Amino acid sequence: MDTIVIVGYIAGALTTVSFVPQVARAWRLKETRDLSLAMLLLFALGILLWTLYGIWTTSLPIIAANVITFILVLLLLGMKLKYH
Amino acid sequence: MDTIVIVGYIAGALTTVSFVPQVARAWRLKETRDLSLAMLLLFALGILLWTLYGIWTTSLPIIAANVITFILVLLLLGMKLKYH
Repeated sequence: MDTIVIVGYIAGALTTVSFVPQVARAWRLKETRDLSLAMLLLFALGILLWTLYGIWTTSLPIIAANVITFILVLLLLGMKLKYH
Repeated sequence: MDTIVIVGYIAGALTTVSFVPQVARAWRLKETRDLSLAMLLLFALGILLWTLYGIWTTSLPIIAANVITFILVLLLLGMKLKYH
């Protein structure tokens, strides 16, 4: 596999996996007050467009990372709306 | 300009701009308790690698978005460490 593609996968893994401790923290503390709702909404919309960009440019790291990130951000959005 | 590139720029603008209300909220409330430190660290590292990926694949939307996002995430990291 190309080095560039590997770096893309690691980058995607990191930015995607980074949302796991955030989801876990919100879930554990049942607290999302310091999370910005505007941030979550804009980010979710952006991630959807990144997925589209990945599909069009056939960049598998971008597609994989953004689909999973989108699910995690949806979880955060749900908790933000529920716990607020 | 190619439609694909335009979608990439909009996606990058959204995921990048999304951090502005988060930085503003943390700054205004002087509160970052609900932000996960692990999330910010992993995300910052991932963003650095995305920038590298963008440079290697000469994807200007990816480069531009990630450089600005990196600065915003550094601001959040600074506030997380300061206010915690």
